[in-house]
This record gives sequence, structure tokens and C-alpha cells, in this order.
Amino acid sequence: MRIEILCTGDEILTGKTINTNYSHIARRLVELGLDIHWGTIVGDDRASLSAAFAEAAKRADAVIVNGGLGPTVDDLSQEMAAEAAGVPLVLHEEWLARVEAFYARRGRVMPPNNRKQAMLPEGAEFIDNPIGTACGFAVTIGRARFFFTPGVPRELKRMLEEQLLPRLLALGGLPGVTRLKRFHTFGIGESRADQMLSDIPGLEDGPVKLGFQSHYPQLETKLAVRAADMATLEAALAPIEAEVRRRLGNFVLAEDDASLESVILGALQAGGGMLAVAEMFTSGAIASRLARSPLAEGLFASAVVAPTLERLCAAVGIPAPEAVTPEAAAIIARALRAGSGASHALAVLVAPDAGPDAREWGAVVCIGLATEGHVVTRRARLTNGRDWVRQGATEMGLDCLRRLLLGLPVDEPVDFEQRG
Amino acid sequence: MRIEILCTGDEILTGKTINTNYSHIARRLVELGLDIHWGTIVGDDRASLSAAFAEAAKRADAVIVNGGLGPTVDDLSQEMAAEAAGVPLVLHEEWLARVEAFYARRGRVMPPNNRKQAMLPEGAEFIDNPIGTACGFAVTIGRARFFFTPGVPRELKRMLEEQLLPRLLALGGLPGVTRLKRFHTFGIGESRADQMLSDIPGLEDGPVKLGFQSHYPQLETKLAVRAADMATLEAALAPIEAEVRRRLGNFVLAEDDASLESVILGALQAGGGMLAVAEMFTSGAIASRLARSPLAEGLFASAVVAPTLERLCAAVGIPAPEAVTPEAAAIIARALRAGSGASHALAVLVAPDAGPDAREWGAVVCIGLATEGHVVTRRARLTNGRDWVRQGATEMGLDCLRRLLLGLPVDEPVDFEQRG
Repeated sequence: MRIEILCTGDEILTGKTINTNYSHIARRLVELGLDIHWGTIVGDDRASLSAAFAEAAKRADAVIVNGGLGPTVDDLSQEMAAEAAGVPLVLHEEWLARVEAFYARRGRVMPPNNRKQAMLPEGAEFIDNPIGTACGFAVTIGRARFFFTPGVPRELKRMLEEQLLPRLLALGGLPGVTRLKRFHTFGIGESRADQMLSDIPGLEDGPVKLGFQSHYPQLETKLAVRAADMATLEAALAPIEAEVRRRLGNFVLAEDDASLESVILGALQAGGGMLAVAEMFTSGAIASRLARSPLAEGLFASAVVAPTLERLCAAVGIPAPEAVTPEAAAIIARALRAGSGASHALAVLVAPDAGPDAREWGAVVCIGLATEGHVVTRRARLTNGRDWVRQGATEMGLDCLRRLLLGLPVDEPVDFEQRG
Repeated sequence: MRIEILCTGDEILTGKTINTNYSHIARRLVELGLDIHWGTIVGDDRASLSAAFAEAAKRADAVIVNGGLGPTVDDLSQEMAAEAAGVPLVLHEEWLARVEAFYARRGRVMPPNNRKQAMLPEGAEFIDNPIGTACGFAVTIGRARFFFTPGVPRELKRMLEEQLLPRLLALGGLPGVTRLKRFHTFGIGESRADQMLSDIPGLEDGPVKLGFQSHYPQLETKLAVRAADMATLEAALAPIEAEVRRRLGNFVLAEDDASLESVILGALQAGGGMLAVAEMFTSGAIASRLARSPLAEGLFASAVVAPTLERLCAAVGIPAPEAVTPEAAAIIARALRAGSGASHALAVLVAPDAGPDAREWGAVVCIGLATEGHVVTRRARLTNGRDWVRQGATEMGLDCLRRLLLGLPVDEPVDFEQRG
């Protein structure tokens, strides 16, 4: 089945808005084993929309149209869909009542131009939007089924999951049960992960598809599975999922919607702990990652951020050690823990190379972790320029903390560090 | 002149990579007054590329093709361009020599498959790429001039500025001198800025076009101008630029490539100053914004980040005031300055509403700024949910610091605060 995505709107066409809706839709289709075949971007003008509908109607089996369902005069999707399908627009009474009720619940009267959002091509299939005033709909134009979706990202995402993907799977004659299992790791590059996992029995030519999405410093490993029913799906997925988990081992930071931050904060909470952080060079990124989580309340004591070892130690209230070493990180973590009253303290020190930013540019990262009566340290050299070192040091600091909290070794080498 | 953008590659088609190249190209075209008319996304397959070339050749005057110039077998742009133009591929000796020299300078031998990157359609116009191994080229297919560009963003951006935009302006019969003047502001919403500026004499129907790009909490105001020569351009731009600057007034954070951070750090450096920061609720975003600037060296003393007033004061080493007030912010800023040895101290305190995150959810932000023998404060209520409040408080803290450093009033109301 050939699926196309047709994005409409001047904001997208002119690049004012980056087209994240396109990539979200495409990624979800691919994850379910559906074929995305073509993408088109046109503005809010009749001639372009008409031409784009006609061309997609010749090429595709299914077309997801995004945008143009709003209440203003430049939102043309319903009108152009009716024209392309050769039918008039008719009022969808039920949707009009829903939108009026939506406004009434907020103590407001529906503005008259919202009525336009309830005008659908005659005979169109209604597609629900439980969180907005733009309903979706489907019509057949030429050989293709066209699905119309709102441009607001959260409305689009919900409609895609609940309404469109099941319809597309059915249209493609594909079994209707799907799942996407995700593992988040730090320390394994995409090509090594591929080598580590691609020979898992049952993975090749089976119903479970392996994929990766690399967003340094993390790698996402995905298992997409589709089956006739849930029991078949689980029977196919379970042994492969377990084997992937086993092979990725201690490098798995989190699974599915969990994150490194949520795993750390969950472990801190389970142990009744509280964290203090001292960081250099990372621009406060460790504190920022943890503190902005809604789970952080009561678990995050405070952070000290400084550009040099001297200033960091001054802020912690101790004399500065000679140099950035694992021992210095241990001393700072211990002092920070004592001074802040936290149960756990993390110190991340960085000794950057001299010289300008470049691929070869690197830094030595020394991490110290203090808990009651116990200190562990980790040393690594990271390279590939300032931004990568900054991101790598942040992730490594957080990962060492996760490993400590979960009782795992903190010193397993990662692919991104320079050894020898 | 009708211009299209044709993005190629499976990574873009399947949504694995977000298509920022498209939005960059489109934005630059619009800024120069060129018309972007259509966008297409296809994968690395012959049938789709061939169909996409043929359709664009019928519709457009100029087509920018992005991607597919790499050395591997799935990079098909040169081959498909030659096929569509009805000519063979021929070796571009000069480019081959350049790529071989590029490898030789790095002490390496050019891999044999890079030779493919020097094979261009016969008669193609060569387009230089001074920073990569994929050269660009142009050919005519149907009624359209096709410009082929590399997918690597920094190579694309440079080729677009230096090579493509001048060619497109010439092709469109447009005068060849352009400039984009940009103002960055905090505190004025897009619609109010439009009201404030749209009646400037000479702006309507003149050569200078006004545009906005809103990325909360900042607004970018753009003046795009095109003229026959530089003298005409400057004569047209200068009075309008001066009037925009006057009307936006103290709200202008920075102009062109400067940023709020660079302006602050520049002013600190000019005055021989050094900064310390204490922040609540903002997750360390103020420290992070300043510390990651390459200009921050020697200007940023340290930052303290904590989730509550109690913990923030403990980290600064003073007893906690009763509540978040301007007076509390003043006390903390003064203590922080004394303790850190910095010349300037910024304290940002936040008293968040109780209850769940929602549009109505807000917080009171109290800002204290201490310099030698002088303290100023600012109080504002921000709403619109946690993320907006967090971003608004960060920006307001930094903006107050800028205003103090530049001798401007710190308490001018902004559009985003709730008054009364």
C-alpha cells in the first residue's frame, strides 16, 4: 500500500514552522510497517491544493492531509476536498453541537466562523477529534482514500494513534494489533548495537522489526511488531524483547516512555534519598535535566554550577584540589553531601584540552558519587568537540548516578570514550 | 518565478531526520522576496526521483534539490539528473582533483567510491562546495532550472548563501543586492509589534519588507530588503531601520547575530565585571544560557540552583526569608554577591500557584540584582502553564540584568505579564 503525506499551510511552506508533524506521522507509519512513499508541501492556495490532491489521487492508495481545517478563510481543506471529490459541503450537525458545547463549557458562545469546521464533504467519513474544534474526515478521491487531520500537533498525534493508524492498517489488509517496544541506552553506538542485536533468533523475517534512532548521547532501539491478535503478538515479542534487554545489559537507561531522569528520580524516591549536584563545564545541564522533571519535587536539594575547579570549590566551601582527578571529584562529592544535607551527591569535573574547538578536541571527565560512608569515582576521556563533550559529560554523570542507585558497576566503558 | 524544493533521502522521507533543511531554504527564499511554491519529499528510489523530477519540471521555474550527492550507491541525484536531462554522466576532472587533495591534506587516500561525486551530467553548471566532497550543479529539465545541493546542513547553508541565492535572484530578474536586518526583543507579542511598526513611512509598498518570527519568549523582527545596488539598499533601509529601533526601544535585546547572552557578557566584560546567579524553579536555565556561551570565560563566577526558597538560601548560606518577595530577592542577591566575590549578582525567585499545570496556572517572579552599593528589584506575575512561566522567568531575569548593565529601567511592563 502506497501512503503519502500532504502538508498544507503557508507557515509550513515558507519554513516559518519546522515540519515536525510530517516526521511524526512518517515515523509512526514506518514503526507499524506501513510504507510512506511521498511527501508534499503546499500553501493555503486553491490552485496548489487542487493540483496536489489530483496528483496524490493518481499515485497513492492512502493520503494523510495535515492542516487547513481551522475556522479562518485561509483554511481550505474541507472546501477543496469536496471539490476534488465532486460533492457539496454539508453541515455535520453532531459536530456543530459538539463544538457549541465545547464553548459553552468554557462559558463562551461559539464564534460564527467555527461553524465552517462542521461543514464536511457530503458522504465523508467523520473522524473524531476529542481535544479540538477541528474534526477529521475521510473521502475517496481518484484511487486514493484521503484522511484529513488538524495541524495542531497534539490533536494530530491523538487522531493519528486512535483513528488513523487502525484505519490504515485495515485498509492495507494488515493485522490490526501493533506494539512498539523501545529501549533507551547510553554508551553504545548505532552500528555496534546493530551488530549486537541483528542475529537474534526470530528477528530476521519474523513479525518483529528492529530499528534504531540515534540522538546522541542516547540511542533508541525499537522493536516494532504487528500480529493478528494480542496473544500472537506477545508470543512473538516476548523472547526477542528479553534477548534485546539481556544483550544491551547495563547500558539500558530506561524503557518505553521512561527516561534516564525518571529512572534516577524513581530510585531516589524508593530509597528515601535526596540529591545534590556540583558541575563544571556542563553549564548546569545535569541540574537542569533533573530539576525540570515533575518528579523532582522533594528529591533535588540543590546544584552548584561553576566554570572552574577553583570557583566550584569556593561555592561548595572547600579549598580547591590541585587538578581535576577522580580523587578531587570524590572530595567535592563528599563535601557537597555533608554541606547540603542530601543523601547522595554527584560531582562532575571536566579538564578540557587547550586549543580551539575541533573534532579532535576533547576533555577528561572525572565523576565522584558520595553516599553515606561510600564514594565511587569514574574517569573518562571524551572527544569530538565542545558540544559533544558537554553532552557526553552530562549523560555520563547522570548514568553513573543511575548505576550507583541500581547497584550496577559505574565504570563500564562506553563507545564514546577514548581509551588507551 | 515559481520555486520548488525537492528533498530526497529515506531518512527524511521516513521521518527519522526532521526536515530542517527544507525550512531553512524556504525561510531564506522568503526573506529575499523569492516565491516558494511547492515542496516534495521522496526517498532514495529511482522511480520516485524520476517522477518527482518530471512533475517539478512541468510546474516550476527553478527547483532546489537537496540530498543524494553522497558517495554511496543509494545516492542517486547525479544519475537521475542526467537521465532526466537526457545526457550522460561525465567526469568533472577539476572536482575530482579537489576531492583527492582534500583527502591528501588529511594524510588519507580518497576512497574509490568518492569518484562518483565528481560525475556530473554532461553540460551541467558546476556549483562549488568549499567545505565538503559533494559539489553542487545545475541543469535544465523541462521548463525548470534544477539546482542540486548536498544534504549536510552546513554545506547546504553555505552553498545556498554563496551560490544559489545570487543565481536565483538573477534568474528571477531581481536586483542582486539583498540584506536581512534582524531585531530580537523580549516583552512584545507578534500582533502588538505588527501594530507598532506597520505604519512606518516607506514600509508599505517600498523595497523593505517587514516580517516576524515568534519563538517565545523572544520575538524576531525582520527587515528584508532588495535593491539594485548597495547604495540604494542602504538609503532605503537606514531610515526604516532607525525607526524600528526607536519604536521597539528598550525591548530590543540584541540585533542580527548578537544574542541576549552575548550582549550581557559583552557589557560585563566592558565594565570589568563578573556575575553570580541564584535561581529557583527555572531549573538552572539562566546559568545554563550564560555559561554555555564561549564568551563566558572569566565573566561567570558560579550559580546556585535549588527548588525552594529554603534550599536556595541554605546553598547561599543565609537564613531563608518568610516568602518570595522583591525584598527577599534583594537580600539573596546581596548575600550572593558578597559570598561569591562577583561584581554583579542576580537572584530569580518564583512563587508558583498551587494546583495542576494549565493555561491559567501562573507564578509570581521576583528578581533581585545587586551591584556595589546598589540593589534593584522587579516583580511580575506570569501565567500560561509551567513551561511558559519557566521560560518567561528565565528571560525576564536575563533581561533585567541586561537593562541594569545598560542603564535602562528594569521595570518596564512586558506583554506576557498579568497586570492589575
